[in-house]
Amino acid sequence: MSNESFKVWGICGSLRQKSLNMMALKVAGELMPQGMSLQITHYDDLPMYNFDVQAKGFPAASDRLRAEILSADALFFASPEYNFSVGAPLKNVIDWMSRYQPVPFFGKPAAMISATTGPLGGARMQYDLRKIVGGLGAQFLGKPEVFIGMANKKFDEEGRLNDETTRKFLTDQMLAFKDWIPRVKRAFA
Amino acid sequence: MSNESFKVWGICGSLRQKSLNMMALKVAGELMPQGMSLQITHYDDLPMYNFDVQAKGFPAASDRLRAEILSADALFFASPEYNFSVGAPLKNVIDWMSRYQPVPFFGKPAAMISATTGPLGGARMQYDLRKIVGGLGAQFLGKPEVFIGMANKKFDEEGRLNDETTRKFLTDQMLAFKDWIPRVKRAFA
Amino acid sequence: MSNESFKVWGICGSLRQKSLNMMALKVAGELMPQGMSLQITHYDDLPMYNFDVQAKGFPAASDRLRAEILSADALFFASPEYNFSVGAPLKNVIDWMSRYQPVPFFGKPAAMISATTGPLGGARMQYDLRKIVGGLGAQFLGKPEVFIGMANKKFDEEGRLNDETTRKFLTDQMLAFKDWIPRVKRAFA
Amino acid sequence: MSNESFKVWGICGSLRQKSLNMMALKVAGELMPQGMSLQITHYDDLPMYNFDVQAKGFPAASDRLRAEILSADALFFASPEYNFSVGAPLKNVIDWMSRYQPVPFFGKPAAMISATTGPLGGARMQYDLRKIVGGLGAQFLGKPEVFIGMANKKFDEEGRLNDETTRKFLTDQMLAFKDWIPRVKRAFA
Repeated sequence: MSNESFKVWGICGSLRQKSLNMMALKVAGELMPQGMSLQITHYDDLPMYNFDVQAKGFPAASDRLRAEILSADALFFASPEYNFSVGAPLKNVIDWMSRYQPVPFFGKPAAMISATTGPLGGARMQYDLRKIVGGLGAQFLGKPEVFIGMANKKFDEEGRLNDETTRKFLTDQMLAFKDWIPRVKRAFA
Repeated sequence: MSNESFKVWGICGSLRQKSLNMMALKVAGELMPQGMSLQITHYDDLPMYNFDVQAKGFPAASDRLRAEILSADALFFASPEYNFSVGAPLKNVIDWMSRYQPVPFFGKPAAMISATTGPLGGARMQYDLRKIVGGLGAQFLGKPEVFIGMANKKFDEEGRLNDETTRKFLTDQMLAFKDWIPRVKRAFA
Repeated sequence: MSNESFKVWGICGSLRQKSLNMMALKVAGELMPQGMSLQITHYDDLPMYNFDVQAKGFPAASDRLRAEILSADALFFASPEYNFSVGAPLKNVIDWMSRYQPVPFFGKPAAMISATTGPLGGARMQYDLRKIVGGLGAQFLGKPEVFIGMANKKFDEEGRLNDETTRKFLTDQMLAFKDWIPRVKRAFA
Repeated sequence: MSNESFKVWGICGSLRQKSLNMMALKVAGELMPQGMSLQITHYDDLPMYNFDVQAKGFPAASDRLRAEILSADALFFASPEYNFSVGAPLKNVIDWMSRYQPVPFFGKPAAMISATTGPLGGARMQYDLRKIVGGLGAQFLGKPEVFIGMANKKFDEEGRLNDETTRKFLTDQMLAFKDWIPRVKRAFA
């Protein structure tokens, strides 16, 4: 395993340009230890899920997301909390992906973070996301969990993280994630 | 209250033309007792939620949905279950509505049904929908709950309901809903 | 309504003598506005729920709790979070109460707080408690929600609250609760 | 791995003598393929969780349950649904176990079934149990899920299962569980 490097597919649950979750995702990527690299996807072009659309053929954006997931060693979600749960943009990606057989999430090592301007840091979203994507077969890292509350005070306009506690949490999670990925790979080999 | 008639705003969580939930929604409307009427909305034109879009001004579809909700006496949701929870199309409506102040769902009497081809009839979705829309201030009818499992065997191609048990459940729920609406109105008067 | 005073039945989800939630519950009682009073129950003598025990007759402690709830104008829960959800002691009270017909929680105005030593303040517990007791017909106050994180640093050994922000949150919630109680009473009249 | 046999620790969430879940648990044990064996635990003697009790020393029943879990290759839960979630008796076991460091559930392969007299078969309980015990590090089998609705019509007084569909589901789940156990063991080796 010495020279192996894990390709992590990152996805942000917010479509906003200056998304705090995108900032957190990028910082987490910079903090990844050697042997991991992050590739962040985009999905502005994915239409709203509709079975009638699927019946005519999966949209190109959906096929592309599926291929990205299948080629990745692991998945990394950074998502805001919209109304106590996963927001529509990310749920839409999940709903499209769930229509492929086999579901591309199946057996993939996964981890998540969430950033919010409120104090709870997305604690109510994370367990729904675990239930949903875990129910489709992704294997989520347990601990450490990372909730970034008051995130608008921790990132500056350029997306730099000005909070050492959060940096420490992210660093620790990325180390644990690096340990988790080969374990899941062994399990699903 | 003798001649009062409650206008119920109905929304279907699926965008599919032959949606089983749309069929169930329409049948429920037909089974409503005197003094209630159902108006079903559509939202194919609502874009995916994105704060940057909102910042330039709410889309017309969003403003229209808000006005419909505000003018309604009560809300009635019929939703499939996508991956153990609310599907992206309905979550998107909710996420848009939640950005208005006050949130148009606040203090509105509400009820829900769910239809699925599987046996559980959306049982895993309904509690998430309650949490989400209830957390925004809608006041959901408690009992009776209606879960329509194996729905593809209960509705025919034209959307007629061929299952007397389901018809009975829907009729009973609509009666309870009619009782519930003025109670919530009194509470929020 | 001028001289009416609402009797609130308070229950703490922890059996610990120096429970932080019991401290928070007592302080909330002191902060209640005129026209509300708190009576805190105890249930150390309630056995673990077992249908075979129920079949021989409800335990005296269960009958007593039911009578207390029925005689109260409103319910107030203060609960720790045990493993992402409601702890066994409080769930046991709920499970016993749910076996009476009608369920004594039905139609009761209710509110909740939670205190934890961790930073999230019980955010993951509160939505489960809402789902469970709300599903049995209690009518929970929506906003404001009160999560008391790092509670061990906010209460002293004698249970005095040394945090003005928390005091403000509790005061505001008790005012909203006082407004909520007669609304629910009107709804269920 | 040829002669290896997995010891599965079974726990029933109901304390009732004629528990439908205990019946289902025993039948599942009989349907286990070669190379798995089920040992069912009991915990009538476990007191209600109370930190003050723990502070004086863990009860003997708690220590015994912990030792059983640690010595098992895998965990198998059969639980009723009490009020939309896990019942107090099983939550109490979990709450006690969570107080040991390390938590004995950590890294254990696990699976679950639920039986109810109602039609949903415990669908609302299972996701809470996954969240709770999975959050403590147990690794749950994904598919197939087994929900035994109308269980009182499927088991006779002696606990015999008279429903071939359910027998097929349980058999398939036990086969999948046997495949899952060594995968988790590899992951946590």
